[in-house]
Amino acid sequence: MRVYADNAATTKMSEKAKGVMIDYLDKYYGNASSLHSTGQEAAEKLQEARKSIADAIGADPIEIYFTSGGSEADNQAIVSAAIIGKRKGKMHIISTAFEHHAVLHTLNKLEKEGYEITLLDVHENGMVTAQQVADAIREDTCLVTIMYANNEIGTVQPIAEIGEVCRKAGVIFHTDAVQAMGHLPVNVKKDKVDMLSASAHKFKGPKGVGFLYAKRGIILSNIIEGGAQERGKRAGTENIPAIAAMAAALNESIENMETANEKIVKMRDMLVDGLSKVPHSKVNGDMSSHLPGTVNMCFEGIEGESLLLLLDANGICASSGSACTSGSLDPSHVLLALGIPHEVAHGSLRLSISDENTEEEMEHIIKTVPKVVDYLRNMSPVWEALEKGEREHII
Amino acid sequence: MRVYADNAATTKMSEKAKGVMIDYLDKYYGNASSLHSTGQEAAEKLQEARKSIADAIGADPIEIYFTSGGSEADNQAIVSAAIIGKRKGKMHIISTAFEHHAVLHTLNKLEKEGYEITLLDVHENGMVTAQQVADAIREDTCLVTIMYANNEIGTVQPIAEIGEVCRKAGVIFHTDAVQAMGHLPVNVKKDKVDMLSASAHKFKGPKGVGFLYAKRGIILSNIIEGGAQERGKRAGTENIPAIAAMAAALNESIENMETANEKIVKMRDMLVDGLSKVPHSKVNGDMSSHLPGTVNMCFEGIEGESLLLLLDANGICASSGSACTSGSLDPSHVLLALGIPHEVAHGSLRLSISDENTEEEMEHIIKTVPKVVDYLRNMSPVWEALEKGEREHII
Repeated sequence: MRVYADNAATTKMSEKAKGVMIDYLDKYYGNASSLHSTGQEAAEKLQEARKSIADAIGADPIEIYFTSGGSEADNQAIVSAAIIGKRKGKMHIISTAFEHHAVLHTLNKLEKEGYEITLLDVHENGMVTAQQVADAIREDTCLVTIMYANNEIGTVQPIAEIGEVCRKAGVIFHTDAVQAMGHLPVNVKKDKVDMLSASAHKFKGPKGVGFLYAKRGIILSNIIEGGAQERGKRAGTENIPAIAAMAAALNESIENMETANEKIVKMRDMLVDGLSKVPHSKVNGDMSSHLPGTVNMCFEGIEGESLLLLLDANGICASSGSACTSGSLDPSHVLLALGIPHEVAHGSLRLSISDENTEEEMEHIIKTVPKVVDYLRNMSPVWEALEKGEREHII
Repeated sequence: MRVYADNAATTKMSEKAKGVMIDYLDKYYGNASSLHSTGQEAAEKLQEARKSIADAIGADPIEIYFTSGGSEADNQAIVSAAIIGKRKGKMHIISTAFEHHAVLHTLNKLEKEGYEITLLDVHENGMVTAQQVADAIREDTCLVTIMYANNEIGTVQPIAEIGEVCRKAGVIFHTDAVQAMGHLPVNVKKDKVDMLSASAHKFKGPKGVGFLYAKRGIILSNIIEGGAQERGKRAGTENIPAIAAMAAALNESIENMETANEKIVKMRDMLVDGLSKVPHSKVNGDMSSHLPGTVNMCFEGIEGESLLLLLDANGICASSGSACTSGSLDPSHVLLALGIPHEVAHGSLRLSISDENTEEEMEHIIKTVPKVVDYLRNMSPVWEALEKGEREHII
C-alpha cells in the first residue's frame, strides 16, 4: 500500500484536468499572439480559461494574469505593490513571520532595497488577527501580504476582516492563496483582497502554471520582460494547455468542494483523534479555522526527517513541513513562528490528504505513525534523557 | 488544406515528447523536493532530464537551470550578468538592435537603473560581426548578449567567433538560442558561450518550459524568489512532466536534425525560388548563414497584416514577424534594424516550416502568395502611386 498524504506539496492531476491538457496539446498548440486561425483558436481558449477562473473567484477576466506558478505570482504581486508604494513615498510593508518563502524572500530583497518590513507575530494557535494588522498599519504602509491558509499547519486566516482593515486604510492587500484555492470558497470581493496568488498543482491542475489576481487599477510591474503577453505584464508564449487544464481543475474542485471536504474532514479528524493518542505529541494550529486536509503534529524526542523516511518505508508519503525547504536542516520557520521550541519543531509531521485518500489509508497511518515514533524514540538519546527525568518534557 | 508555416512562433509537440509528458503526469507527479519515494522518483527524473539536456549542448548538469521558458531565461541571464558586473564597477552591456524583446526590454530596464547599453548596428544582410563586438568592448563591459539566430529573418550569427572575442576580453557572453536550439548543432563549449537561453516549444517540446545554461562559476541572481529549487536560483515546484518532455524533444530534434534539415532546406529553397518571382519583392537576410526553416520577405505596396489574414483565409498560417509583437502596429524592429524603410517593412511575411510540412504545401504557398499580393496591391493606393510613377519603387 502506498498512501500519498502530501497533497499540500503537490497533487496528482485530476482525470478531467489531464484530459483537457492532453486534448489541447493537439488541438490548440498555436501561439495565442499569432493572427492566423491556429493562433486565434488558441487565443480564444486562453480567454475562455481567463473568464472561467475570474468567474470562479468573483473577479473580472481583465484582473487575471497567468504566471508560471504561485511563487512567480507572489513575487510579482509584492514587487508591484512595493513599486506603487515607492512612487507615493510609502515604503512600509506588513506581513507575517509564517508566510511561504516566496513571500518572505521577496520581502528580504525589498528590505535590502530600503523598504521597511513588519512581520506580525503569529499566535501559538497559528493565527494572526485583523486587529494586529490595524495596529501595524502606518501612514507609509503600501502593502499588507498575509497568506490565506498556512502551507504547513493549515490554519486559515481571517482574510475578509484583514481585507476590511486594509480597505479602510487604503492599503493594498495581497494574499498568497496557494493552499486555499480549490479547497475553500475563495471570493476576492467577499474577501476584500486586492491581489491574490494561486498555483494549479495544489488543486489537481498541472505544474508550471498559476495565476495572479490584481484588482483593476493596480498596475503590475513585470518580473519577466519581453513580449506583450498578459497585457504587457508577463512575457512568454502562453501555455494554453496548462492554463485550460488549470481552469478545468479549479472548476472541478469548486463543484466538488462540499462533498470532497466532508469526506476529507472526516478522514482528517480520524488522523487527529488517532495520532493525538501518541504520548508527548501535539497538534499544531487551531483546528477551528483550518484547511480541510492538513494536519500538522509534533512528536517530542524525534527527528522529523527520520520519521518521514521510516513512514516512506512503510508506504506513507508525508512531509515535515514545506517541500520547498526540505533540503534545509533548520526546523520549520512556521513552527518557530508559533513559538514552538527548536527541539520540538524538529519532530514535526505534516499529513495532507485529498478526497482520493480512503479511510483504510487513514487507518494505516494511525497504526504506523505510533510504531515508528516509538521505534525512533527508543534509539533517541534525547528521549532517553526525557524518560530518565534528566530533561523535562515540553509537550 | 491548412498549412502551418509558423513554426518559429511555436511548434506542435512531437508524438514522442507528448508521450513522455502524458506518461509522467501520472507516474512522476510528486514534488521533487519531497523526501518520500513519490518525491524522490520525480527528483530522479528531474536529474535525468538535466543530464540529458546538458549532454545535448556540451554542458555539465550543474550548469542547467530550468525556467518557465525562453523569456524568463533571457531575463535571468542578463540581470545576473548585470549584477555581477555592477559588483566589479562594470556597467556597460553590448547587444544588437534586432534582439528579441525579452532581451531588449530587459536591457531597457537596466538602462533606467544606470547601465549603459550599446546596441550594435546590424548589417542589411541581417548579420553582426565579431569585429563589431571587439570594437565595442570596453574596460567596463560586463556582458555581451547576442542572439544565436534571429527569430524573424532567421540569420545565424557568428557565435563561436563572438564567443572567442568575449573570452579573450574576459566578458560574459550570453546568447538567446531560442530559435537555434534543436534546429542547429549548438554546443556551449565549441560556441564559447557563457550563458544560453532556450525554450522547449520552439523544438516540438511543451510550452511553459525552457532552460538557462550558465557556465560554472557564474552566480545567478533570482528572478523568482522563494523555495530552494534549482539550487536556490529559481523558486517554484519543478514541472517534471514538461521538463522531461523538453529533454525528449531536444534529443529527438538532435537525432533527426540532419535528415530533417535536408528536407526543410529543400522546401525552404522552393519557397525562396517561387516567391522571389513576385515583382518588387525581397528576401530578407543572408541565406548563406541561416536557419533551415525560416524565410522572411517584403512585398512592396502592401500591409503585412492584410496579407496574413488573406493567407489564413486560404489555409496558410504565417506571420509578419515575431508573434510576441503581433498586437503592435509598428513595423518590425528587426527589419528596421536591417535598414529596411518603414513602408517596405510593413509588407513583411515570415514563413517558418518544419519537417512535418510537405512539398505539396510549399506549392500551395507558392501559388497562393502571389495571388494574394496581387489582390492587395490592386486595392492599394500606395501601389497605384508606384505604378503611375508618382512614387519610386524601393525594391
